[in-house]
Amino acid sequence: MSIYLSSRLRTLTPYVPGEQPVIPGLIKLNTNENPFAPSEKALEEARRSVRPFNLYSDPDSGELNRSIASLLGLKENNIISTNGSDEILNFCFMAFCDDDHPAIFPDITYGFYKVFAQINGVPYKEIPLKDDWSIDPGDYIGSGGTVFIANPNAPTGKVLELEDIKRIIEGNKGNMVIIDEAYIDFGGESAVSLIDTYDNLIVTRTFSKSRSMAGARLGFGAANENIINDLDTVRFSTNPYNVNSFTQALGIAVLNDEEYTRSNISKIIETRDRTVKELRKLGFTAPDSYTNFIFAGHPLIDGAVLYEKLREKGILVRHFGTERIKDFNRISVGTDDQMDILLNELTKILAEEK
Amino acid sequence: MSIYLSSRLRTLTPYVPGEQPVIPGLIKLNTNENPFAPSEKALEEARRSVRPFNLYSDPDSGELNRSIASLLGLKENNIISTNGSDEILNFCFMAFCDDDHPAIFPDITYGFYKVFAQINGVPYKEIPLKDDWSIDPGDYIGSGGTVFIANPNAPTGKVLELEDIKRIIEGNKGNMVIIDEAYIDFGGESAVSLIDTYDNLIVTRTFSKSRSMAGARLGFGAANENIINDLDTVRFSTNPYNVNSFTQALGIAVLNDEEYTRSNISKIIETRDRTVKELRKLGFTAPDSYTNFIFAGHPLIDGAVLYEKLREKGILVRHFGTERIKDFNRISVGTDDQMDILLNELTKILAEEK
Repeated sequence: MSIYLSSRLRTLTPYVPGEQPVIPGLIKLNTNENPFAPSEKALEEARRSVRPFNLYSDPDSGELNRSIASLLGLKENNIISTNGSDEILNFCFMAFCDDDHPAIFPDITYGFYKVFAQINGVPYKEIPLKDDWSIDPGDYIGSGGTVFIANPNAPTGKVLELEDIKRIIEGNKGNMVIIDEAYIDFGGESAVSLIDTYDNLIVTRTFSKSRSMAGARLGFGAANENIINDLDTVRFSTNPYNVNSFTQALGIAVLNDEEYTRSNISKIIETRDRTVKELRKLGFTAPDSYTNFIFAGHPLIDGAVLYEKLREKGILVRHFGTERIKDFNRISVGTDDQMDILLNELTKILAEEK
Repeated sequence: MSIYLSSRLRTLTPYVPGEQPVIPGLIKLNTNENPFAPSEKALEEARRSVRPFNLYSDPDSGELNRSIASLLGLKENNIISTNGSDEILNFCFMAFCDDDHPAIFPDITYGFYKVFAQINGVPYKEIPLKDDWSIDPGDYIGSGGTVFIANPNAPTGKVLELEDIKRIIEGNKGNMVIIDEAYIDFGGESAVSLIDTYDNLIVTRTFSKSRSMAGARLGFGAANENIINDLDTVRFSTNPYNVNSFTQALGIAVLNDEEYTRSNISKIIETRDRTVKELRKLGFTAPDSYTNFIFAGHPLIDGAVLYEKLREKGILVRHFGTERIKDFNRISVGTDDQMDILLNELTKILAEEK
């Protein structure tokens, strides 16, 4: 830390993203990436259609926003595209949280919410999940703040019914509710259908998971036009050309090849459900997953120890040190072959433990 | 504006970027883009080497930072890469400005500085340029705040000597000085050589101008390691994967084809200096330019009127309404052909005025 860093930031704990090591043969199941690359068809279309790089990218991401709107049955002015969904989430903290509107979110959820609150200097309140790690919608009624709910939630993989989401939105009139749907394509019902009904709802999404674009950085927010205008005020006050031309072109091209996306999602869900069953056979506890990852723990082996043992075998998963979940590991759903290798190594590790 | 927008942001005036219209045949001289696209060689290399998009981009931009460091004769840990140079500038406001460290910058300069101060809720002070639009280094000695100097400055195109930059850095011990070198490849001497000497200096740069990558969004900051760590704290608290994989690959590839960049810079400088001469022959006042744009005004025609007349002819330049500079227009340096068309239209417009 330099002597120049603002006193506001001296106690800040930055978010720690999952490791991105480049090790040949590594089975990388730690950051919920899609095991399948974008289709060659989409890549070719993006290369052909990309605006020349010497010109600035379209600061409105107009064509991309129209494509996203069309996918969701919304209008162009219901969409704001961003440099990954971390950017739209940060914009929500900047625009809709302050001393009078603290951020409210579960104690176990996407770890970045707490960091966004801190970097923006806004108060926050963490509401404990129930003992079974589910969210009790009743805990969020009349919250008095800006509510952030990941649905499905991470790293638990659990989902809230749309009726419960509706209760939370209606129970927070005069306050904003942000539903972070990073994993919604793998399970659960989207709140996008509620956008025309409620003026205090923002749905955020990412192209990093179901659409294989983690490395291209594309996320978006969907809400009514007034809210999008507020978010655009923040965007034009931080980084108007936030989405580069290639990513805009690739986003459009990937949406033009929705069949490929749907097919990958089906494969991942099938692999996931098979893996959960096999894990349970091995004695693991793992809640039903509505995402592209599995949250699993075993009574015979410590979570951190299992993480290390898998790492030694060239398999990288994600372990969080937080007390309530330290016995578990978050395992991204890879290809069938990758999951077979994982299951095989887990069998061996457990045999050693007995 | 929605009823939910934080009171902190209700009076915010967002930055207004130059228009990016897509009109066939338009001569676009309004946002200081490079008239030459990145080389095919660099594009091909980037496509070949880009990390698969389903994986996250390298959050450290490691290879890219090493390439940039090598260009500047610095070390990897002296560099932070960002989503355009707007992002690194915003990070500087976030990390090094607060109530006790107001932002200090000229009254006529990059218009985004004022917006960055506002969105981050930090006080700022504008110091008037001298009557000839030059910066008086003496005005910045013992400023009591965090100093932002664009060198060369925009939209004036004027430059400070390195000795004057040094005076400003030495005259602000205990406070940070940010030198924004977006246009340095077109004129003036870089402050990068001072980074090993001063711990209160950050140099920011962009790939948007000299390196033809406006649409790919790449900027960076150079400073000593402690300062880079502070900036990384901000980056990891807002958007750890801030630079996408394609842009990292293209940045590296463009730096591998430095000869092409140098050749384009030479062409642009030649075209610029010829155009300045021709403009002066037409009766324009235009300071010597050290950038890839020309700031020009004519005693016989109002700046806003000239802007409109050029627009009608399909030539887009940039006009700023600010009182002190409203008689002038900022004209990006395009190709020789584009400048010939511009000069031809200006001759006709002036003939009509007489």
